Amino acid sequence: MSATTIPHRRAAALLALSFISCIVAAHAADAKPALAAKPTLSDVIKASAPSDWRPLDPSRTLYMELPAGRVVIELAPAFAPQTVANIETLVREHYFDGLAVIRSQDNFVAQWGDADEAHPKSLGTAKEKVAAEFTVPMSAAQHFVRQRDSDGYAPQIGHADGMPAGRDPKTRTTWLAHCYGMVGVGRDNDSDSGNGSGLYAVTGHGPRQLDRNITLVGRVVSGMDLLSTLPRGTGPLGFYEKPEQYTPIKTLRLAADVPEAERSQLEVMRTDSATYTAAVEAQRNRGGPWTKVAAGYIDLCNAPIPVRQIGK
Amino acid sequence: MSATTIPHRRAAALLALSFISCIVAAHAADAKPALAAKPTLSDVIKASAPSDWRPLDPSRTLYMELPAGRVVIELAPAFAPQTVANIETLVREHYFDGLAVIRSQDNFVAQWGDADEAHPKSLGTAKEKVAAEFTVPMSAAQHFVRQRDSDGYAPQIGHADGMPAGRDPKTRTTWLAHCYGMVGVGRDNDSDSGNGSGLYAVTGHGPRQLDRNITLVGRVVSGMDLLSTLPRGTGPLGFYEKPEQYTPIKTLRLAADVPEAERSQLEVMRTDSATYTAAVEAQRNRGGPWTKVAAGYIDLCNAPIPVRQIGK
Repeated sequence: MSATTIPHRRAAALLALSFISCIVAAHAADAKPALAAKPTLSDVIKASAPSDWRPLDPSRTLYMELPAGRVVIELAPAFAPQTVANIETLVREHYFDGLAVIRSQDNFVAQWGDADEAHPKSLGTAKEKVAAEFTVPMSAAQHFVRQRDSDGYAPQIGHADGMPAGRDPKTRTTWLAHCYGMVGVGRDNDSDSGNGSGLYAVTGHGPRQLDRNITLVGRVVSGMDLLSTLPRGTGPLGFYEKPEQYTPIKTLRLAADVPEAERSQLEVMRTDSATYTAAVEAQRNRGGPWTKVAAGYIDLCNAPIPVRQIGK
Repeated sequence: MSATTIPHRRAAALLALSFISCIVAAHAADAKPALAAKPTLSDVIKASAPSDWRPLDPSRTLYMELPAGRVVIELAPAFAPQTVANIETLVREHYFDGLAVIRSQDNFVAQWGDADEAHPKSLGTAKEKVAAEFTVPMSAAQHFVRQRDSDGYAPQIGHADGMPAGRDPKTRTTWLAHCYGMVGVGRDNDSDSGNGSGLYAVTGHGPRQLDRNITLVGRVVSGMDLLSTLPRGTGPLGFYEKPEQYTPIKTLRLAADVPEAERSQLEVMRTDSATYTAAVEAQRNRGGPWTKVAAGYIDLCNAPIPVRQIGK
């Protein structure tokens, strides 16, 4: 039983996690032919080699400290070099410290930045306008590994550097995909009106219609629940209506600027490893005994990107 | 600007909602050809006729009363007649009252039922085992309207009676699809081991691999945020580890058994109406000025199913 089944009760879940082989044996006499047991995602992770994982690079990792804990965001400079550079400027100049999560729309996004529209906080030396980075040349995504499943939003899909992505061989462009946990840059109608001072994370079913319409800059790799469980805002688009409903941002720092002893020790499975391909396959075609029909398909946003504590 | 864009700031969102025509005019001089303005989902809803909506049927609507408010679930007896009947028996005999939400797994499900595995609550006159209703004959979904988008999980997709569904013309079967807010029945390894005493709602990216593997019985039409914002459980599969972390269920009632004055007054857009087709199209191919690239596609789980207060 993988972490994505629905056991009737908790005891069954624990039993299945502990004694899956016994359950397989117990059901061998079932009348209906069962799916053969197959390695689960958990099995693939257990069998992985240390070289299948990479630690987060402190120079491209953000820590957003909320009252309830730390949200860790891996940046994707290959897909948004100018925007990521602008965000790094904002972060290094402590732009976000003291600002807040100001929006939480159910099944869509949580958004943070400056709520004070009458007297906006200075952007310091960061740029007010950054050119749209909705797509980049395919050559920018050097470690793109294609996922073989069809997709309605992109001619091709896959992963590059731990991020879900789409690409189009005709236009020779590639782009990050709006899956759960992806982080992007709010903008107004002009394509260059986003500068990274207003950011959001996807907290619902992947709003893939936003792909190629907005600059995505990274992915939440830890602490996602701190954003996804925020009370929903009751104003238009899920903005909070009262300042006391905001969740304050204590600090937002580049990991490289945080003392080493205080850094999160996380590693991400390399999405260009054979083990990652096996991980996706384990989710695409699940074996018995819980699963009765293997999907034979996996949506880009359902392909897991494993993250774990280093040394655990 | 629709409810599913990411404005840079709240003021821009409100501005766009109020004066969208002004913004269109202001951008007419942009160098890059913009997408023509098109009716948004909001426009389609505003232009709808009363006959495009149907009130919830009290005999197939559940109210789950949590401390923070009411979760309204529309049942889908056409897709799971036996299981829905068993749930109605459980509800009428007050089985769920005093039980709790015992699991919340990020980007997956919230689950409720009996946490006491040593001394499980009596099912009363409800059945212990109910045959799997993972699929039903296509003829059961009389109001199925096909959505023209391709889908990796089902040969055909569409909606029937306000529920997202897949179907297979070869096997002549149809089934409900695991989209955000859908409600299903936990089970153990045996297909008939679910009886409706343990239920879950999808709170993350649609886990469509569960389609045809588990009995879905309905959809949350109001109060979804009461489930989606619950703190995540820290035990295996997101089960809570301590009883004090549970969210108690005050009562779970059939709307028909609640005094009329206390009922939620909700109506759902008829998914077999031309207006609904227009609503989906508005989301599939969005117009300018915020949108720069229309997706030309919509995932089954991104097709909205509008619900509103009657008379508002």
